[in-house]
Amino acid sequence: MITNETVAPLYAPALVRSLARAAAVVETITLPDGEAHKSWTTLNRIFDVLLDKRFDRRCLLVALGGGVIGDMAGFAAAVYQRGVDFVQVPTTLLAQVDSSVGGKTAINHPAGKNMIGAFHQPRLVIADVATLATLPPRELPAGLAEVVKHGFIADVGYLDQVEADLPALLAQDAAALTRAVAGSCRIKAGVVAQDEREGGLRAILNFGHTFGHAIEAGLGYGQWLHGEAVGCGMVMAADLSRRLGWLPDDEAARVRDVVRAARLPVTGPGWTPERYLSLMEVDKKAEQGTPKFVLLERLGRPRVSRVDEAPLFETLRATTEQADARPAGATGQ
Amino acid sequence: MITNETVAPLYAPALVRSLARAAAVVETITLPDGEAHKSWTTLNRIFDVLLDKRFDRRCLLVALGGGVIGDMAGFAAAVYQRGVDFVQVPTTLLAQVDSSVGGKTAINHPAGKNMIGAFHQPRLVIADVATLATLPPRELPAGLAEVVKHGFIADVGYLDQVEADLPALLAQDAAALTRAVAGSCRIKAGVVAQDEREGGLRAILNFGHTFGHAIEAGLGYGQWLHGEAVGCGMVMAADLSRRLGWLPDDEAARVRDVVRAARLPVTGPGWTPERYLSLMEVDKKAEQGTPKFVLLERLGRPRVSRVDEAPLFETLRATTEQADARPAGATGQ
Repeated sequence: MITNETVAPLYAPALVRSLARAAAVVETITLPDGEAHKSWTTLNRIFDVLLDKRFDRRCLLVALGGGVIGDMAGFAAAVYQRGVDFVQVPTTLLAQVDSSVGGKTAINHPAGKNMIGAFHQPRLVIADVATLATLPPRELPAGLAEVVKHGFIADVGYLDQVEADLPALLAQDAAALTRAVAGSCRIKAGVVAQDEREGGLRAILNFGHTFGHAIEAGLGYGQWLHGEAVGCGMVMAADLSRRLGWLPDDEAARVRDVVRAARLPVTGPGWTPERYLSLMEVDKKAEQGTPKFVLLERLGRPRVSRVDEAPLFETLRATTEQADARPAGATGQ
Repeated sequence: MITNETVAPLYAPALVRSLARAAAVVETITLPDGEAHKSWTTLNRIFDVLLDKRFDRRCLLVALGGGVIGDMAGFAAAVYQRGVDFVQVPTTLLAQVDSSVGGKTAINHPAGKNMIGAFHQPRLVIADVATLATLPPRELPAGLAEVVKHGFIADVGYLDQVEADLPALLAQDAAALTRAVAGSCRIKAGVVAQDEREGGLRAILNFGHTFGHAIEAGLGYGQWLHGEAVGCGMVMAADLSRRLGWLPDDEAARVRDVVRAARLPVTGPGWTPERYLSLMEVDKKAEQGTPKFVLLERLGRPRVSRVDEAPLFETLRATTEQADARPAGATGQ
């Protein structure tokens, strides 16, 4: 069982007791917490223990924690002795509705996030919304970013439900959380089942992510949570979709309103459009240096497209702080 | 293109010229030579260049070199941005007849060889036997170990041909080498096509490897070449098969004679059987700590089985130096 120093004291004892009833040997590997540790050095601690204890190809890795633990344990499972089974037990909303489903695993490289990884499906995902009670306050809205994203890109009926549930979700109502986790897993699994390796359709799950990754990379990872950057990125992508004449004004406004109601930022950092563009080009979804965007023709109807610089720059000026929210006298960089 | 310091001056310029006619950008990554560099640190040099030059998921990695380069470039391709294409251009006989075919990629961990890896099939394997002219003298027999192995486990007709060709193969006759490379690739690809992920049949390719890995691990990797250890390991496995009452005496003798005629060792280092057993148990083919062996019921008819200690220890005493080849007064360790 692979977990981190924050989650271990909360949930590891109960899970170990449960696993001990089924497994011959249970070892607990506790890693340091945080995206900064999603590295080869930390990953190698997993291999050190597995090899020291002589776990063979029939071992099962269980990831107990958020997206970082899931990504690392999943990647360890993908490459330990060329692949062993793993189970996800996500303990954050983001991991429950997004990263634990779909088989993407990775570690970071100093030059980019998730640059070293594999597609490796978990045998099972166990999402217990009771674990969300111990989340730091910013984490719940960050997870809701992916929940509302599933509504925006795939299912307006689900969006209606989530929008109505937002106050209950933010109040950690168990029934509302269970509805959201189940609904989001259903939508994400449906997309992944049609396109596991990102040949095409799976790209729609990156709605808001090209802008969001630029924000995360520009601020330094960890300043904004991933979900916060994606929330803001979806507002930017909706604004761009509107400027291209696709998304109706009221639907773009609804994207912004829902993101704001989920307590997520709707305005990006005040950088020049050129700086945003340069930050986007190291995004691994880029093909041959030109970024593609997931845009909306309508709510629930995504479309992947390159865009001209002119509307992109208009969006970047209109949806970032420099547009109107910065103090007089402040200069862009 | 990923190569090493030994191969680069010999064949890199010609391959780069050829690739430059087809690719928009060709970068050459030259790694240090040798199994000792089959590590994460060296692998990371590939990622550093790929990211620095902003290669995206549409890049193609070309491995020019022996098994170490093929394993590392293949593993880099398996995990760079969760998987990109790669092509094998093997320049050793061992790589041409064995490691370049089948999709096994890996790096070593301080606690074990090939412990971190992936199954990732090359899009293409280009084996040019002209490159074998520059091989160090021990490498050709080491490659022949896998060639004769394919005869032992799968095809007595092929074994007859290889046995007759051995003098020509050792003299680097191009026609004989081409026959051996083609024949071995055919046999190996046939096995892998039926069992890519080592669910069962593929295990027969490990004939001689449980003993061989013990020798390599005990001596320290690199003292004996992999093919030398496997050659000796096949003699040991044939001896064990004979002691179990499966392989006829004359066929076990033929295994030993063919291995010797390929200029490979037929006697293992003089360790106690207990030490051999302990070295085998870290072999990743082991399941739950008990080693399995690929044995022969007849030539061309392999069978995977656990064995009792008694016949195993008899084989280990009869086929290692301590049996009769050590000077009087030498003590086991």
